[in-house]
Amino acid sequence: MHTQVLPEPTEAARTEGKAARMTSLHLSAMGEMVERFLDAAARGDLTQASTLLSNTPSLINQKGYSGWTALMLAARNGHYNVVEVLLSHGCDKFSVNSSSQTAYDIAKFWGHRHISNLLGRTDDGCRRVLPDTDLHQHENYFSRETLDRLSGKRTDKVWLETKRNHPDTVYLLFSNLSPMVSSSQVDEHTGVETKLCRFRYEAVKELLQKPATVLIFLGVEKRRGPSSPSSSQMEEGVQEPPAWFAISTDEDAAELLKRCREKNCSFPKTPNRDLLTFSEEEAGIVAQARSVLAWHSRYSFCPTCGSSTQLEEGGYKRSCLNADCRSLKGVHNTCYPRVDPVVIMLVIHPDGNQCLLGRKKIFPARMFSCLAGFVEPGETMEDAVRREVEEESGVKVGPVQYISCQPWPMPSNLMIGCLAVAISTDIKVDENEIEEARWFQRQQVIESLLKGPHPAFTFPPRQTIAHQLIKHWIGMNSNL
Amino acid sequence: MHTQVLPEPTEAARTEGKAARMTSLHLSAMGEMVERFLDAAARGDLTQASTLLSNTPSLINQKGYSGWTALMLAARNGHYNVVEVLLSHGCDKFSVNSSSQTAYDIAKFWGHRHISNLLGRTDDGCRRVLPDTDLHQHENYFSRETLDRLSGKRTDKVWLETKRNHPDTVYLLFSNLSPMVSSSQVDEHTGVETKLCRFRYEAVKELLQKPATVLIFLGVEKRRGPSSPSSSQMEEGVQEPPAWFAISTDEDAAELLKRCREKNCSFPKTPNRDLLTFSEEEAGIVAQARSVLAWHSRYSFCPTCGSSTQLEEGGYKRSCLNADCRSLKGVHNTCYPRVDPVVIMLVIHPDGNQCLLGRKKIFPARMFSCLAGFVEPGETMEDAVRREVEEESGVKVGPVQYISCQPWPMPSNLMIGCLAVAISTDIKVDENEIEEARWFQRQQVIESLLKGPHPAFTFPPRQTIAHQLIKHWIGMNSNL
Ligand SMILES: [Zn+2]
Ligand SMILES: [Zn+2]
Repeated sequence: MHTQVLPEPTEAARTEGKAARMTSLHLSAMGEMVERFLDAAARGDLTQASTLLSNTPSLINQKGYSGWTALMLAARNGHYNVVEVLLSHGCDKFSVNSSSQTAYDIAKFWGHRHISNLLGRTDDGCRRVLPDTDLHQHENYFSRETLDRLSGKRTDKVWLETKRNHPDTVYLLFSNLSPMVSSSQVDEHTGVETKLCRFRYEAVKELLQKPATVLIFLGVEKRRGPSSPSSSQMEEGVQEPPAWFAISTDEDAAELLKRCREKNCSFPKTPNRDLLTFSEEEAGIVAQARSVLAWHSRYSFCPTCGSSTQLEEGGYKRSCLNADCRSLKGVHNTCYPRVDPVVIMLVIHPDGNQCLLGRKKIFPARMFSCLAGFVEPGETMEDAVRREVEEESGVKVGPVQYISCQPWPMPSNLMIGCLAVAISTDIKVDENEIEEARWFQRQQVIESLLKGPHPAFTFPPRQTIAHQLIKHWIGMNSNL
Repeated sequence: MHTQVLPEPTEAARTEGKAARMTSLHLSAMGEMVERFLDAAARGDLTQASTLLSNTPSLINQKGYSGWTALMLAARNGHYNVVEVLLSHGCDKFSVNSSSQTAYDIAKFWGHRHISNLLGRTDDGCRRVLPDTDLHQHENYFSRETLDRLSGKRTDKVWLETKRNHPDTVYLLFSNLSPMVSSSQVDEHTGVETKLCRFRYEAVKELLQKPATVLIFLGVEKRRGPSSPSSSQMEEGVQEPPAWFAISTDEDAAELLKRCREKNCSFPKTPNRDLLTFSEEEAGIVAQARSVLAWHSRYSFCPTCGSSTQLEEGGYKRSCLNADCRSLKGVHNTCYPRVDPVVIMLVIHPDGNQCLLGRKKIFPARMFSCLAGFVEPGETMEDAVRREVEEESGVKVGPVQYISCQPWPMPSNLMIGCLAVAISTDIKVDENEIEEARWFQRQQVIESLLKGPHPAFTFPPRQTIAHQLIKHWIGMNSNL
């Protein structure tokens, strides 16, 4: 289907202003060229398509039978490399055929997911037409991977030792699970901006000697540009990017603060608020460091036998010191950091125009949020969504769709964000879990998000996945 | 758009054999009725649409302007309740308009996800056209929720006590994390069929008295039919469905087997193989019970202070017996069962026609599977996919799409299944992780899945999500 392409020079003439001034001879030659170009794209003949395109750049958005472009034909037949080249020549990916389909629609319909992802990628313009790609492209707070974790290096004691003493290495200081930061009031609108205090080896080396110090290897800085360092480059030591470590110590916080030359330094005391003021880059590092440190602070003893444990593998393993312990035979999760999967879901009314939000007693006045709960052993994400919603609100849920996830380092949750469709609407709240649950009209939600001086109610801040799920939902149909 | 509907009686006459034999007067009356019916559906007027439909059932699949049906118009404008009623009257959801779109396509395009889910639900016929719904509808082994967990009842000691002694209550016996089962060789093709041995209170009551016994409340049987029991019904004790418990004991396995009146009873010794022979219903129960019991067997001691712990909340909590322990102040994950999120991914070549599979040394000869790895603290699922693939195989990954998940009770993983698109193709294996990784042509994979007498290589069995991801991928484009 659609691999045979009929030229339509009159169509091309209508869409291209220049072509209208051409002679009939020109038109016929152009028509033949369009046909050859579209056929090459449909067949996946990258060489011929590229040659024709470099001779006649105006071919790129020409349409053939039923308004199909070269991009659509390549997308239809799964020719990834042709799509890639057409995009790199700047072709219009929002062009539609006579059935109002874009090349993305066509790739998606025919199951060429790699191509639909390529066509949908990093493009805000796509979101209106393609709700699917919306939050997949969205990056949640705490989610950016600023460092390359190089987990294979955790067992390389010599390499780690070299990095520990290296003058380029960056150290972060944690006390009681809070990182040392410098804060500045940017302006009334933006609020406080927080930055991690960075230390060099010389400034922390005697802290590293203390027995109560916990040292975590976080990774190395990612190289900018297309290629990250290969292991061979790393081994040669050529242009090695700086390594980052986190240090947790029981030294007095006031003493630690004296080490810093920056002003306005502190250890934030309210993680749920203070940890939300970093840049995206630093938030990602904080998420990793705080989660691993929280695990160390809670899992100092072997849960299998109750003995003490020792830190290994750059801070990513705790091994039991009791030589007879079962946990030393085979691989056991007791030795590795814990990550708790949590489902968080925006439940949509069967009419599509209301969503279910709840509030806990501890929330600020008038604040509502998405329902959420831990995934239980032997349970899928989708069933956890259904169970939690019914337990907390009495509402039954049918289809569940995963949207995006967010690491939440208080202490170490993986927040799995979903949309869910209700199949019943009566609310019966479990008062042990939440204080109130209500259906909110889309319009109410939009008005409160835009926040006049007195919003009827409020949501969690933009750094939370709850906020992003709500925004995703109200944006989904905004162009209808 | 499309809320104004022009009647096309001649179109209707062509598609409906009966209408062709009508008089012109009939045709005109029918045309008007079709117009009113389509208009009601487009406006979301459920009352009028229902009335017209009960008077004239043949309206249901009639087409208007551009071949749009009532279902398409309701789907276009987000009228969930109208779609629901039309479906309940048996309308044809695979009917297409003149742009070859089904009602599902239309709902999806316009972002009415609750409707596209409704239209895509439980329908194999949809899969060909809609790769999106493919595995969302697919249920993985270990994933069925046979019981209603009633987690709110775990803290209700009186209720639990009543259930423990109830003659309808079902007990499962576990020894060394294996359930007691009866096995029978069904036939050469199907292989072994395993069933859980079920006990009543009288048969296990003295086991329940022993201090080393661990008792887990699994839930109550789900009612068949549309509505599950409400809490009020439960409290009245009217028609209460049977409760299920799992018992783990250190009593000698041979002694335990004597309790069972069934033949061929045993405790399987190789969980990765023997636990894969249950029915879907029982597999879901085993997943829950074994995961929680595995947690108890590894987490007998408080990881925060090393003290002993006691079982609470129907087996879903272990509290530290040291009154000064930090874990007793506030809510801490040390007290609750651990679930480890794992990403497992099928990486697709940029050309769309090859996939990346690897093998570990411990695999049977010629077996290959998807790459997989634990999600780390402070990491998203998508970044875990990218990191693990690059670490294990050297291949760089771009877009990642979640497909479905599977609880895996060895000991308590949540397998998060994804498709991922490679953006580089050179393979460099990390030999600490895997022995070999290779790109496989789609056709190779299909041939080996169909398994002639000597397949070139093999995959994990159908009960694994790896198998299902591979099947999903080869099925995605199977109708091209
Ligand atoms: Zn131990
Ligand atoms: Zn304790």
